[in-house]
Parts: sequence; C-alpha cells; structure tokens
Amino acid sequence: MSAPAPRSLPPRVGVWLIGARGSVATTVVAGCAGLTAGLHPPTGLVTETPAFADSGLPALSSLVFGGHDTLDCPLPKRAEQLAAGGVLPPGLPSAVAAELAAADREIRPGGPLPGDIRDEEQLITAFATDLRDFVRRNGLARVVVVNVASTEPAPTGPALPPSSLYAAAALRAGCPYVNFTPSAGLHHPALTTSAASSGLPHAGRDGKTGQTLLRSVLGPMFAQRALTVRAWSGTNLLGGGDGAALADPAAAAAKNAGKERVLADTLGATPEGQVHIDDVPALGDWKTAWDHIAFDGFLGTRMILQTIWQGCDSALAAPLVLDLARLLARAHELGLSGPRPELAFFFKDPVGDAPASLAEQYAELQRFARRLSGGAEG
Amino acid sequence: MSAPAPRSLPPRVGVWLIGARGSVATTVVAGCAGLTAGLHPPTGLVTETPAFADSGLPALSSLVFGGHDTLDCPLPKRAEQLAAGGVLPPGLPSAVAAELAAADREIRPGGPLPGDIRDEEQLITAFATDLRDFVRRNGLARVVVVNVASTEPAPTGPALPPSSLYAAAALRAGCPYVNFTPSAGLHHPALTTSAASSGLPHAGRDGKTGQTLLRSVLGPMFAQRALTVRAWSGTNLLGGGDGAALADPAAAAAKNAGKERVLADTLGATPEGQVHIDDVPALGDWKTAWDHIAFDGFLGTRMILQTIWQGCDSALAAPLVLDLARLLARAHELGLSGPRPELAFFFKDPVGDAPASLAEQYAELQRFARRLSGGAEG
Amino acid sequence: MSAPAPRSLPPRVGVWLIGARGSVATTVVAGCAGLTAGLHPPTGLVTETPAFADSGLPALSSLVFGGHDTLDCPLPKRAEQLAAGGVLPPGLPSAVAAELAAADREIRPGGPLPGDIRDEEQLITAFATDLRDFVRRNGLARVVVVNVASTEPAPTGPALPPSSLYAAAALRAGCPYVNFTPSAGLHHPALTTSAASSGLPHAGRDGKTGQTLLRSVLGPMFAQRALTVRAWSGTNLLGGGDGAALADPAAAAAKNAGKERVLADTLGATPEGQVHIDDVPALGDWKTAWDHIAFDGFLGTRMILQTIWQGCDSALAAPLVLDLARLLARAHELGLSGPRPELAFFFKDPVGDAPASLAEQYAELQRFARRLSGGAEG
Amino acid sequence: MSAPAPRSLPPRVGVWLIGARGSVATTVVAGCAGLTAGLHPPTGLVTETPAFADSGLPALSSLVFGGHDTLDCPLPKRAEQLAAGGVLPPGLPSAVAAELAAADREIRPGGPLPGDIRDEEQLITAFATDLRDFVRRNGLARVVVVNVASTEPAPTGPALPPSSLYAAAALRAGCPYVNFTPSAGLHHPALTTSAASSGLPHAGRDGKTGQTLLRSVLGPMFAQRALTVRAWSGTNLLGGGDGAALADPAAAAAKNAGKERVLADTLGATPEGQVHIDDVPALGDWKTAWDHIAFDGFLGTRMILQTIWQGCDSALAAPLVLDLARLLARAHELGLSGPRPELAFFFKDPVGDAPASLAEQYAELQRFARRLSGGAEG
Repeated sequence: MSAPAPRSLPPRVGVWLIGARGSVATTVVAGCAGLTAGLHPPTGLVTETPAFADSGLPALSSLVFGGHDTLDCPLPKRAEQLAAGGVLPPGLPSAVAAELAAADREIRPGGPLPGDIRDEEQLITAFATDLRDFVRRNGLARVVVVNVASTEPAPTGPALPPSSLYAAAALRAGCPYVNFTPSAGLHHPALTTSAASSGLPHAGRDGKTGQTLLRSVLGPMFAQRALTVRAWSGTNLLGGGDGAALADPAAAAAKNAGKERVLADTLGATPEGQVHIDDVPALGDWKTAWDHIAFDGFLGTRMILQTIWQGCDSALAAPLVLDLARLLARAHELGLSGPRPELAFFFKDPVGDAPASLAEQYAELQRFARRLSGGAEG
Repeated sequence: MSAPAPRSLPPRVGVWLIGARGSVATTVVAGCAGLTAGLHPPTGLVTETPAFADSGLPALSSLVFGGHDTLDCPLPKRAEQLAAGGVLPPGLPSAVAAELAAADREIRPGGPLPGDIRDEEQLITAFATDLRDFVRRNGLARVVVVNVASTEPAPTGPALPPSSLYAAAALRAGCPYVNFTPSAGLHHPALTTSAASSGLPHAGRDGKTGQTLLRSVLGPMFAQRALTVRAWSGTNLLGGGDGAALADPAAAAAKNAGKERVLADTLGATPEGQVHIDDVPALGDWKTAWDHIAFDGFLGTRMILQTIWQGCDSALAAPLVLDLARLLARAHELGLSGPRPELAFFFKDPVGDAPASLAEQYAELQRFARRLSGGAEG
Repeated sequence: MSAPAPRSLPPRVGVWLIGARGSVATTVVAGCAGLTAGLHPPTGLVTETPAFADSGLPALSSLVFGGHDTLDCPLPKRAEQLAAGGVLPPGLPSAVAAELAAADREIRPGGPLPGDIRDEEQLITAFATDLRDFVRRNGLARVVVVNVASTEPAPTGPALPPSSLYAAAALRAGCPYVNFTPSAGLHHPALTTSAASSGLPHAGRDGKTGQTLLRSVLGPMFAQRALTVRAWSGTNLLGGGDGAALADPAAAAAKNAGKERVLADTLGATPEGQVHIDDVPALGDWKTAWDHIAFDGFLGTRMILQTIWQGCDSALAAPLVLDLARLLARAHELGLSGPRPELAFFFKDPVGDAPASLAEQYAELQRFARRLSGGAEG
Repeated sequence: MSAPAPRSLPPRVGVWLIGARGSVATTVVAGCAGLTAGLHPPTGLVTETPAFADSGLPALSSLVFGGHDTLDCPLPKRAEQLAAGGVLPPGLPSAVAAELAAADREIRPGGPLPGDIRDEEQLITAFATDLRDFVRRNGLARVVVVNVASTEPAPTGPALPPSSLYAAAALRAGCPYVNFTPSAGLHHPALTTSAASSGLPHAGRDGKTGQTLLRSVLGPMFAQRALTVRAWSGTNLLGGGDGAALADPAAAAAKNAGKERVLADTLGATPEGQVHIDDVPALGDWKTAWDHIAFDGFLGTRMILQTIWQGCDSALAAPLVLDLARLLARAHELGLSGPRPELAFFFKDPVGDAPASLAEQYAELQRFARRLSGGAEG
C-alpha cells in the first residue's frame, strides 16, 4: 500500500512525444532538463515571458516525458549526436544524462512497422494502452500528446496514416493533442466526429519556425503599407530528417500549402512564385530559407525584399513544443475543448478561425494567457 | 467682384512642401496628378485603403501643391530627370505637365541663402507670408506644411536651423506641420512653447520607408518569440541627395538615433551592432539596406537573419507624404491639436507616446481613422 | 551588270539570328546600331577590349542582321516593349528605328509551325535558301548563324528538333554556327557527320550570363584554396520567355546539366545540392540567381558563401552574341573549322576540350585573339 | 657530449608565431598536430594539394612551434576556449594536449609591455636571442617567423611599432619572415636596408581570407567580361580580437587600403563605395562580409551582384600560415631571398610586383612550386 502523494507537490504533467527519438524530441527533453537545472536561460520559450506568469501553467520541473518511436537509438546517445553537430550545447548531454535516461525508459515502440500484422484498431488500442500506462506509472494529472515525427506524405486512400493512428489513441486515452507537423494527425476525416465529441482541446498544424514565421510578419507589413506584392518566391535548404522527408514531393505539398496560405491570407491575394524544399544533408540539423519578394510601390515602381534565415530546426521547434504542451495541459485542466485557434501564433496552418498576421495571433495568445489565469469557463 | 464658390465643390486643401523641387516632392506632385487622372492605381497610399473610406479625408483631386526651395530647376524638368532615372514612369511627366507647371508656379524661394542678410524673425515672417498668400491665391480651406528637404546636421548652437524657421512660419500662419525628415523642425527647444499654444496638430519625425520599417516588424517578432537578439547590424547604400547629406556624420547621427530607438523599444534592450549610411551616387534614387541580425535561440543556439531591401526612396516616401497631408488636414478640420502619436505608423521617431511595433502602430492608425470619421472631439 | 564594290569599303558580314524577334535578338540589333551611332560605350562587349584590337574582327558597323522567327511582332515594336520594361534605354528604339526596320525586313518565317506539312528535308532546304538569299541580297562576305531562340525540351526521338533543322540549314548554306542556347542545334547525333565534314567553325552551347558565370570563377577559388565544397544549391527566378520555357522540366534539365558540369569540372567532385529555375513573370526580363555554397575549411569548420545576381538577361546575352558572331566570322575568314573550344569563355557547356575555369578560358580566348590577328593556319 | 641526430630523421623546422596565444596561432598549433595525427584531412591547406607534392616542403610532422606573446593564457586553455566557441572541433584540444603544451613551453614574453624600460635596440636583441635559443634548444634547421598578432594602428612617428621590432629581430637572427597582418612589420622604412641586405626571403602583407579573396576572383570576372563596375561597397562584421582592433579607424585604414587596391588593380579603375569593419563581439571568432556590387552591362543596363561570406577567421587563416611557413622555409633552404611576389596568392596586399587576380596569382604559385622542386638557383 503506497502512501498518498503529499499535498504540497504540484501535480505532474506528461508530455508524450510521437517521434520521441528524433532531433526535436531529444532537444525538448534535454532542454527542459537543462532549464530546470538552471544551466540555460529560457530563450525561445514564450511561456516563460511575463505575460504567462499568472496563467497557471505547469512548471517545467513538473513535466514528465515519454513517447512512441519506431527507432531504437537511446536518447542519451541521440543527445550526444546532436551535441557533436552543434545542435545541443557541448556539455548538456552529460549534465542531464539521468533525465535523458528516464525519458528513454518511457519510450514505447511505435508502428506500424514493416511486417506488422496488427490492424488499425489494434494499433490504436496498443498506443492508447501505452498512454494510460504512462499516466499510471508516473501518477500524472494528465498527458499532452505532441506529434513531432517526420512529415508523412498526404494520405491518399481511406487507410489511416500513422499520425492519425496516434491521434486516435490520444483521443481514446483522453489526452489533449498537438500536431506540430503538417501530417494528417487529427485532421483526418475519419477522426472528425470522435475529435468533436471527445471534449479534449487540440492544436496544430505544423510549427511555425522559420520562413513562415517571417512571412507572417512581412505579409501584413506589405498589406498595411498598401504595397502590391507581385511575386513571393522561396527556397528552403534542410539537412536533417525533415529535409529527406520533404524531398518527397507529396510530403512537401502538405508543408507548402501552409506556407502559401499565410501569404494569401495576409496579402489578400496569392502572389506569383514557388516554394522549394531541398534536402541538403551537408547542412545537418541547420536550415536556410531564402525568400525573394518582388513588390510594386507608388506608381508601379518595382522593388525587392530578400530575407535569409539561418536557423537550427530543433532549437527553433523545441521551445514551442514545451510552450504548447504547457498551454494545452492548462486548457485541459480548465475544461477547454476542441480546436484552439488562440494558439495560431505557433502554427503555419492553424486550426479553427484564426488571423494570419503574427501580431494579431500574438494578441490572441495574450488574451488566452489571461483567460487561463482566470480559470473560468469551459 | 468674384462670385462665391458653388456649394457643391469640396474645399481645396494646400500641401506646402519644404524642399519642393526635390525628388520626393516632385514624385508627390506628379504622382498625385497621375492618380487623379486614373493613370495608376493608388499603390502605396495607405489612405486609399478601405479603412479610411469614411474618414472624411480631402480627396486627392482637391490637393493644391506649393512650397519652398532654394534651388531653381523647374518641376517639369525635375520630373523628366526622375523619369530618365527610372523613378517616375516614362510617360508620366508629359502626361501631367500642366499640374507640374501649376505647382511650379507656387514654389517660392527658400532660405537663408548664402549672403542672406535677413535675420531669423524676418525669414519666418517672409515664409509665413508665402503661406498666407498661397491660401488666399488658391482659396484654400487650409494648408499642411510638410518638410521633405534634405536632412540637416543636428543643430549645435542657439540659432534656429532652416527646418525650424520653416516650422515656425507654419505655426505663425496657422498651418498643421509634418516633419518627414530627421531635421529639427518643430522639435527645436525654442519652438516648444509656441507649438504647444498654437492649437495646431503636428506629426513627425523621419518617414519610415525601408530599414526601419522592417525593423518595426522584425523586432516585435523576436520579442514575441522570446528569442534574444545579440547584434543587429545594418548598412544603407543611398544614391540620391539624401545619400550625400547623410554622408555627413552629424546628419547621419540624427537618422541613426531613430533607427536604433525602434530596436531598443521593441526588443527591450539595445543589441550590439552599428548602422552605416553610405553615399553611393551610382545608385541614383535607389537605396539598398542590408541588415544582419544575430540572435540566440533555445539553449543559446546561434542563428542569423539577414534582410536586403532594395527600393526607390522617392517612391517609398511620396505616398506617405500624401497620406500624412490628408490625415493632418482632416485632424485640423476637426480641431485636433498637438503632437499626433496616432501617426507613429509613418515615422522612425514618432512624436508623443507611441508604440514601436508596426502592428500596434497600425492598430492605432485604424482607431484614428475611425475617430476622424466621427467628426466629434477636439 | 552591276559595278564592283569600291575597294575601300570593308566587306559586310551577316548575323542571322534564330529567334530574331526575341528579347535577345532585338537587343542585339538595337544595341549594335546604338553603339555604331556612338550613343553608348561598348560596355559588356569583350571584343571591343584592347586584347582584340588587332584580331581583324569585322567592325560593328559592317554587321547586317536578319533571321528566322515564328512570331510576327515587328522589331521596332519589340524594341519599344523592351524599352518600356527597362531593358533598352528609353530613347534607343526611336534613335535606331531605321536599323530596326532594316533588320525586320530581313526576318523570314521560321518553322515548323502547327499544321506545317513540310518534312525535315524541305524545311532545311527552305531555311538554307533564306540564308543564301540573305547573302546575295546584301552582298555579304559571309553569314554567321546564331541560335538565340527559346530553349527546347531535350529531344527524345529520332526527329530533328527545330534548333537542329536550323543548324543543318546553316551547314548546307556554308555558314559558321553558334548555339547560344542549351537546345540540341548542331549537337544532334544526326548532324555529327555533316558538321565534321563541313569545314565550318562552330561554337556553343548555352551562353554563360549569370549563375554559371559566377560558378566558373568561384569553383576554381574553392579548389585552389583546397576548401571542400559540401553542397552548392541554387535558385533562378526568370521572368521573360526563358522563364516560361524553362518551367518545363525537360527544358530545364538541359540547362541544369551545363550548370552542374562547371562545378564537377572545377571542384573535382559533384557537391550536394539542386538547381531550380522558376518562371516568375512579374520579373519581366530580369533574372535573379541565388546560390548557397556550404563548404568545409580547416579541421572541417563549416562555412557558407551566398551570392545574389540580379541582371537583365537580354543585356547580358546580347553583347556576347555580337562577340561570338565577330569571332566566328573571322575564324571562318581564316579557314578555321570544327568546334572552337577557344570560345569556352562564353558558354556554360562548351564544345570540345576546354577548361572549366573562367580564368583559363579567358587565357585561351586571349591566345585565340592573337592567333586571329596572325591570320595563319587552317 | 650529445650524439648526432640519426641521418634518417628529416631536419626539423621552426615556426615562430608573433601573437602565439591568439586564436590563429592556437588553431595553427592544434590543427597541425591534429593533421599529423591523422584526425582530420588537410582541408584548406594549399601545400597539401598535388601541385606541391614534389616541392621539397618540410613535412607537417617536422614543424616545431614557438613564439612571442604579451598574454599569459596557456595554449591548452586557449584551445579549450576555441573549441567551446565552435572554432576547433570539440575533441581536438584534449587529443593534442601534449603538442599544445610543448608549444606553450616555447612561448616567450613579447613586448614592449607597459612600463617596459628597454629601448628598441634592447627589445630587438632580446627577441633575436629568443629565436636563436629556440633553434638551439630544438636542433632546428631553420625558423620562419610569422606575424599573426592583432592589427596595429598605422605607425605615425619614427618609433618602430612592435611588429617592426619583431621583424628586425627575425632579420638579426637570420629567419625568413611572413607578415600575415596589415601591420608595418618589415615594411617600416627603417628596416628597408637591412631587409634588402639580409639575404632572407620574406612575404606579406595581410592574409587574404574572406572578402578580399572573393574580390580577387570577382574583379577579374567583371573586367574580362567588359562590365563596368560603378560601385563596390562592403561591410565586415568581426567578433574576435581582430574586430576590436579594427574598430580603431587607424588600424582599419591599413586593412582597407589592401582591400581597395585589389579592386583598382583588377578593374582598372577605383569604383565608388566604402568598406566598413564593425566589431560585433556576439559573433565570436566568426565573421560575415557583405559585398554589394553595382555594375553596368550592355547599353548601360544597371545590374547588381551581392555576396555574403560567413566564415571562421582562425580556420581560414591557420592553414595559410602553415602553407606560408613551409614555402618560405623551403625558399630559404634553396637560398632564395628578398620579397616573394610568387606568394601573392595568400595576401591582400602582396610584396613586390604581383598580379591582383587570384587566377594569375595561383598560376604564379604553381610555377613557384615547380621551381622549389628543382632545388636550383639563388
């Protein structure tokens, strides 16, 4: 007979990562541990800014990590690889080795793997069982499921893609769900009804970490100044797993749709121009996005803006994953349900009815932060 | 005995340009005529967007142009020069030759010129007389004075610089005043009292047409995402008269102060980095601004954003001059007075207490547009 | 009985342009006339530099233009369109209207047009007859045929593509031939034998006017410094007809092969990275090429060079077309035959055995200039 | 009585680094050890390419390092700092700890330090004694002195700056001398006679590691294509000690003179445009150079090339230092003396009469490589 947990301890909250051995997930786990240990300031973490101080979010130190993955490489080793590539600070993997090992123990095999004979229902059941076991084993108040796996090709037939199997399992286990990728996830038509009736909050799709982040502030600038954008062209060079996944045109199509929507929405018209996503393994986890914007000024004078964004994908994504897990955990605690367009700030292709301008998205997020602090409503 | 003006004609509004033979002023006059004639869409003109449809602004066709300048070159010839340099559309100068000639007839000699024996008081009186004559001659409801002259060095002694002499004349003649440059203008301490007691609305300083426009949307983006900007460096290459004026370090200092303020205000700290303004006559009226922003992401990962803005200075400035003249004319009609921080959207270094983020400035401008439509208040 | 031409007049040389109504051809004709009239300095014309002063090249004033095209728009009108788009100087089309009209009279219909019932042999015969008529009508010493038509898709079957029909006609009419495009032209296997036995000099393929020009100087720089290029990625934005033609992946494939060869040849290995060619009509005749080069320095330190090239395609190509026509005319006069690798300086994908580094190509070109002056050899 | 060195051992060659505890020197020592141990390929080392295989250069494993510095920080610790900043590979400092410690033991105090009462003659004597002791202690065949210290302000009076004191000491001790910085060094007028009579080979000034390297290939490209460069503007952002040193306008002036000479020499005229060197400590040892080149094409069409070079200063400089030490050691062995313009390939502002184009410099270097293999001449 185990003793009840003492009252003074805050409830622990689970973060279940689909793609738990990937670069983003590894950075999430190592980074959260590093921040909790005071090794780094919370740069990039929106929920650690003053606007969220009274929102009742779970503390970083209360987060417990687990997840699904189809790969085997242990998390501490993945962290060492990332440090060698300059993605994680050199000393961090050893400094947080215990936390990495703890999260590693909570990773369960994903699927379906080649040769897997389980049908969709069996897979969903298995994944949901993994989630319930995670809760029980760790005495968690709740678990937020976050998809950070490689981008899937857009689904073509009635079969549920893996991302949707995991999303269905989240619903079944009563877990809030975040889709940080452009994969189908909870957006699959077969899940619409159960998502709506689940009473669970969810958010997505596709974290806004580079080119689209810029577009969501530059698009409104052109519109507000009544400048006519004639063509907006872009090329992305990606080295990590995402680069390889998006070299598949079907996968890239899903991503580009989100990138182009922000332009149409903020400019009021779709300009000329294409978006390329190139797989350049030599860049490792680093990505470069070049944008070339041809616009007309007064009397049709032709002008050009170009932007070059050089960032580390995992370092851009990881703090947003922590932000979203905390925000959705708190939303769940307060009984909020359904798609949360208040989190459009974080996504290329937000759920629900949300503005496309980053400034307006940020204003909505701040209102949401205040609402979370109130604790009222359902 | 002249007949009274028929009731149906809208009142005509004067726009008095300090630096009336410069590139910006010439583009303002030629462009307004071209738009009125339906030769070009109103690209770049914020006040022609739907948000201002009910604000009661004077129509473009009701604007009458005049101004001061110390140079002699006739406006039609200046327009031909600008067309040869690609700043104005090839056919525009001949298409609006009559309007250019009309404005040319309303330009009066500025000052003080070398050898001028008039003292400050005499110059102010002369300039104010020019303004009153302009009103009378054209039967104008009001005149907005806009400084678009080359940037002056920051004043060092008690003597009023030319820009402040013109500003004092505007006050004396009862004209709203816009300072589109970083020169002292109405900001000179000797004018503080008379500006405050004049009951006139005024706005400034230094039109936001390129690098600072970008900074006012990118700065907030970094702040909202909790990314730490370590260094923000910039180089501007300018070919026209402004390039030569700003090659004077004293003049550049005034301009750079405004550029850096927007960073400090939006980022909450002043990053490392310098701003250079180079005179490159080969570029003509075109300018290029390169910005290099070194920022830290999650766990201190170092990332970089670079922007390259290639624009035509006059084409960027001219529509804003028309916007400001119309807005301040309407504000004056409604009895609004004093500095108008609602117009911060247009300036590098806005008067009064204004936000530094372009999105917030735009929201304030939209509120102002609604207030102008109401017609109430003072 | 016609009188013999007076001895003092230099022989006139024909330049027959395939794609004679295109932007490049129009710029060639208008530009040559403008230079001859002393309206512009010979910027961009390599053969007007001192190295070629004694090479015995035909004077610009001795060139007579004609060509084939499947379109109808008169050359003077095409020139006006180019001037409106900023490709030609505003006053040039009217200043050289007579020369444009004269060239326009020498343009014959190209083919095959849709519905054309002529077979390959008939088309070649017709084109060769046009060439011979051009010589006779103008009393020309010789004619150089230059292909500046839009890029064709790579040929798939045994049928000769149009570019090869024109090339075959050049052989039959005894004309030196330049392929300024990546189309097949004289490279078609069916023409190999007749090209070899023709005794005519020829040169190609694909004028080096932007991204590849840069690559041919940057590639050797990395190699000479022993820096390891890991990935070389590029995106081209093209607005004119070439943009539309190259949006066809089959046509782009031909072009990209040349672009990549220069890297493999100068670096000694093929780096990672793709090349994109986007059709962006808003850019008109202007093109932008962005290159991103990831390279390793000492101890594997990762570094990056990026280049952005913004040029006007026709203005870059036209002087090289004049250079090549003059050089090949002189080579023909001296009895040189076969592929001329000495002209690799001008091409992405040079014929024969030529170095890939621009500096070495330039050294070869200078040697060729001296050889042409000598007048010896066959 | 010590035994004679066994015949089979190659003679050992000393490399004496002025600024021996700086980033460049530390990278030189650590890198040479890493290469010798087979830990890294010789990327960036020109003398390890096949062209130098038969030149009789001293092997990397035969180099012995020492030097002067006014700072105290031990070399192994400096290497750890560089590895933390991403300049050296993470594991290298510990892997070559013994070699770093050995070089550290060969570093002697530089000068003059504040309060130093020695006069110029005494300082030169002391430094020369350090050099002779280094030779004796290590049984060296010869020592090449290489100045890699921070850039000095241009000397104003008759007093010898420190860099010239060290250079005088090299002459006195009979050591070949390389000036890798823009400081005066052997260029001081007071040293002209003794340099000429010394019979020693020397090379300099100012290693060509970034912006000027690019300029030396791009300048010739424009010239060869007869394109008219109107303006060439540049901004350098430097974080390391060099950034701080060059923030001093007097020091920057020396550096910029070299940068601009390459343009004047390769273009045949000095274009408009300035060069800025900004100290941006946030960039650490990384540097970014932006160049903006406005050029005219055919008929005066305006075009633009921009380049952005992002490199690690020490990683760019270190292999060239090794190259120069080896080349000058071999030249000394063969009895070559005086300034060596054959090494212009390595310098912004080469000694003697050297071409400015990198391609021509490389051709000269290859000829020199062959000459060194011959072993003849003096």
